[in-house]
Amino acid sequence: MQNALPVTRAENFADWYQAVVGEADLAEESGVRGCMIIRPWGYGIWQRIQELFDRRFRDTGHENCYFPIFIPLSFIAKEAEHVEGFAREMAVVTHHRLKMIDGVLQPDPEARLEEPLIVRPTSETVIAAAFQRWIRSYRDLPLLLNQWANVVRWEMRPRLFLRTSEFLWQEGHTAHATAQEALEETLRMLEVYRSVTEDALAVPVVTGEKPPHERFPGADSTFSIEAMMQDGKALQAGTAHNLGTNFARAQNIRFQTERGDLAFAHTTSWGVSTRLVGGVVMTHGDDDGLRLPPAIAPRQIVLVPILRDRPEDGSVIEYCESIAAELRAATALAEPIRVAVDLKAGRAVDKRWGWIKRGVPIVCEIGARDASGGSVTLLRRHRARQDGKLGFETLPRADFVRGAPAALAQIQSALYTEARARMQANIRSDLTTFADVEAYFQDSSEAESFCGWAEVPWSRPEGAALQAVEEQLKRLKLTVRIAPLEQPAIAARRCVFTGAPAREVILIGRAY
Amino acid sequence: MQNALPVTRAENFADWYQAVVGEADLAEESGVRGCMIIRPWGYGIWQRIQELFDRRFRDTGHENCYFPIFIPLSFIAKEAEHVEGFAREMAVVTHHRLKMIDGVLQPDPEARLEEPLIVRPTSETVIAAAFQRWIRSYRDLPLLLNQWANVVRWEMRPRLFLRTSEFLWQEGHTAHATAQEALEETLRMLEVYRSVTEDALAVPVVTGEKPPHERFPGADSTFSIEAMMQDGKALQAGTAHNLGTNFARAQNIRFQTERGDLAFAHTTSWGVSTRLVGGVVMTHGDDDGLRLPPAIAPRQIVLVPILRDRPEDGSVIEYCESIAAELRAATALAEPIRVAVDLKAGRAVDKRWGWIKRGVPIVCEIGARDASGGSVTLLRRHRARQDGKLGFETLPRADFVRGAPAALAQIQSALYTEARARMQANIRSDLTTFADVEAYFQDSSEAESFCGWAEVPWSRPEGAALQAVEEQLKRLKLTVRIAPLEQPAIAARRCVFTGAPAREVILIGRAY
Repeated sequence: MQNALPVTRAENFADWYQAVVGEADLAEESGVRGCMIIRPWGYGIWQRIQELFDRRFRDTGHENCYFPIFIPLSFIAKEAEHVEGFAREMAVVTHHRLKMIDGVLQPDPEARLEEPLIVRPTSETVIAAAFQRWIRSYRDLPLLLNQWANVVRWEMRPRLFLRTSEFLWQEGHTAHATAQEALEETLRMLEVYRSVTEDALAVPVVTGEKPPHERFPGADSTFSIEAMMQDGKALQAGTAHNLGTNFARAQNIRFQTERGDLAFAHTTSWGVSTRLVGGVVMTHGDDDGLRLPPAIAPRQIVLVPILRDRPEDGSVIEYCESIAAELRAATALAEPIRVAVDLKAGRAVDKRWGWIKRGVPIVCEIGARDASGGSVTLLRRHRARQDGKLGFETLPRADFVRGAPAALAQIQSALYTEARARMQANIRSDLTTFADVEAYFQDSSEAESFCGWAEVPWSRPEGAALQAVEEQLKRLKLTVRIAPLEQPAIAARRCVFTGAPAREVILIGRAY
Repeated sequence: MQNALPVTRAENFADWYQAVVGEADLAEESGVRGCMIIRPWGYGIWQRIQELFDRRFRDTGHENCYFPIFIPLSFIAKEAEHVEGFAREMAVVTHHRLKMIDGVLQPDPEARLEEPLIVRPTSETVIAAAFQRWIRSYRDLPLLLNQWANVVRWEMRPRLFLRTSEFLWQEGHTAHATAQEALEETLRMLEVYRSVTEDALAVPVVTGEKPPHERFPGADSTFSIEAMMQDGKALQAGTAHNLGTNFARAQNIRFQTERGDLAFAHTTSWGVSTRLVGGVVMTHGDDDGLRLPPAIAPRQIVLVPILRDRPEDGSVIEYCESIAAELRAATALAEPIRVAVDLKAGRAVDKRWGWIKRGVPIVCEIGARDASGGSVTLLRRHRARQDGKLGFETLPRADFVRGAPAALAQIQSALYTEARARMQANIRSDLTTFADVEAYFQDSSEAESFCGWAEVPWSRPEGAALQAVEEQLKRLKLTVRIAPLEQPAIAARRCVFTGAPAREVILIGRAY
């Protein structure tokens, strides 16, 4: 069996990922260290993801706005804990002009900034400063904002979508009168993340809280959705932070309460990024390329006419266009179906493989026989090959058009079901000692046999005891992902690390 | 008559502009020099503008993508003419890490970049480098891309929306096989700019070509749409550049032609930015604040219930919500009507003035009498006050709802008609000598009497003669805006600058 990609998942998962991102026209290196070019197909997927999240943010009362890309160094220096978490990886602007000196274009020494500016790695500090100006009274709360923006965190080992120096994201920032409301908001947005990621991206996740040492710098608590990639590694796919009054204290965000006294506001922040596109690839891709859930596919159905430079070509194109028009008038997953007829120059077989690699849910190949016989030859991209062969089907035109909405809905749910089953099958919950953990994860130490996560009881160690756990895990290249929100009964179980009575279960695994 | 703003247009146009931008919650200074915070109402207008342009870009075959925010200095140095135009105003990143040294957070001297990175002032250079990789054959052409992004050009005298160090924009970048196709593309996008700006923003413009000295650095020709603000100044509201083979030569973008030889591609670029929001303010604003064309209003109709902390409040709210639901189900200007019921804490009269200042096309105030009598009391924001009074009307509910789509369409066209008449009335076309020009513009040298543009014949001087014209104009603070695409017959007229036979007419005026 010949695959469309030069490398399979089994051979080398990392190389396979690179191949999908390249062959599906998702993104490429830009020549600027760690910064990617997002190509139209990849950007189209991101725009769909944006649209679906944005709708949910608006439905939950948030308004979009835009804050500056530059943050003065002094803003960042204000929030001590926050600084510590980010200080090591920021792009620093020091000059505001270039000058030709001795024939070499360079930063103009006379245009040195008095205070360096940081390209935002995230906007808590600058938004907190605005909140301080805007919030006067309890009547101004809650304040529910979101922005779609680019951010920069310097990366030494960049990987397209997963870890790039510049990435695109949304960051929600809210302020509330009470600790309770801030916690509710944090969990509400975590739930929005879970539902869009599962329902639209068809990527199953576990929701939970990060242990203290994995919190966002400056947060009281950090929650995340964690997805399992096909190599068993975890991808942190979205985070929501309850910032308590930490940023409010650093920036003096106070308001007059209903009783008339002054109180610090409680703030939250939450984000998802272009990293999700990488998660879609590693969840749904196969050895022929990407497979896209219809809800986020820029095109859900592509019709490729088979043209032979003959007079009947015209009627084949006309036939394709009329099917496309009927499909566009229909609705799938509550939106008009997104269809394209591929009329670009080139051979039909090459175009077909192009769309297979890009993951279009339904690819149709329409020849003169289809046009004259009123049929449609199609491929449902999500189905596994049989005996190495692509599973083409031929349907009467009317049946195909009438059935297209259901077919797309079915593909959406099949991709989710497949990924959910894989995730569930690969969470070990029967390890009771650290020796068990070691045995499980050492077996699959490197790129060898597949290895998922372990759900283990722990005693919530703190301080030095927690550090010892971190060290133990680090040797196995593991991290604590989260304590799932849905906890099983732990009864009399004991912590796999300390042997003390367990207080909850956590997920541990390797991670991107 | 008491206005809603602390300053009128007649008193001080610049201060009035600041007041509208502030009072309508459009934007504010961020504390970072030249960078603004775009507040939700302002950002909502921008998102509407984005949406309307984006639809037209897609309809003309363009695909969205995303290029990095950073451009290596060497990329910029490659295009000599381009450098010259931009070199003086760029943000330069020189370090990639901060470090605490002697208790002071600062750029880490050990993390100095080998090559400084420029925060993109525009992306021609980095996109040309990608085009060089992507374009191999005539089959790859035309290549039609667009990106929505933030860009930075250092500004010493920033003004919200009009001139900010960071601004949001779209930049289209295309490559073509022939000079003719590149010119056609440039003019096609200029026409898209004209039609969206006139039809959706209700801002009338003149389209034309810039004289050589006003071209984009590196372009063969630059076209723009020019709008007249209420103080008579011109606002360059969108530009489209035919770059010829200049960038292709600098970056070696060559392709195999149908005949088999190698040729340089012809490229174009074109952009509109958040500056348009400033143009909307200065075109439609009045002394009570903003007036928004319904096509770009985030909310087209706002219902303010008059609540008195009495039992009947519930039925007033219910009445408002049911009218809102009916309106949302209706379509105006080919989209569902955007409605809000304002339930925020506060007095109805304050809320009313808030929405008037924000420019909502139709503001309704609904009291218990309306609710029980089945009527709607409303204000059409675009209408001038009569004897200083707001022109409230009361309509039966059914008439109001049924008539809303037509009312919004009528407001859209009334705002355009008003602005177009003002522009046309203020273009002088009867000046025949430079003395006439001086007399006209000197009369209104400073913030005195209103003064628009002059349409004058000229001989298209070049070199030193053109420089002389520039100097003459500069003394009057004038610039050549464009040579309009639609030219009147100039017959035997003579150039107002050189006295030589005229070759075309140009528009001159003061500009933002």
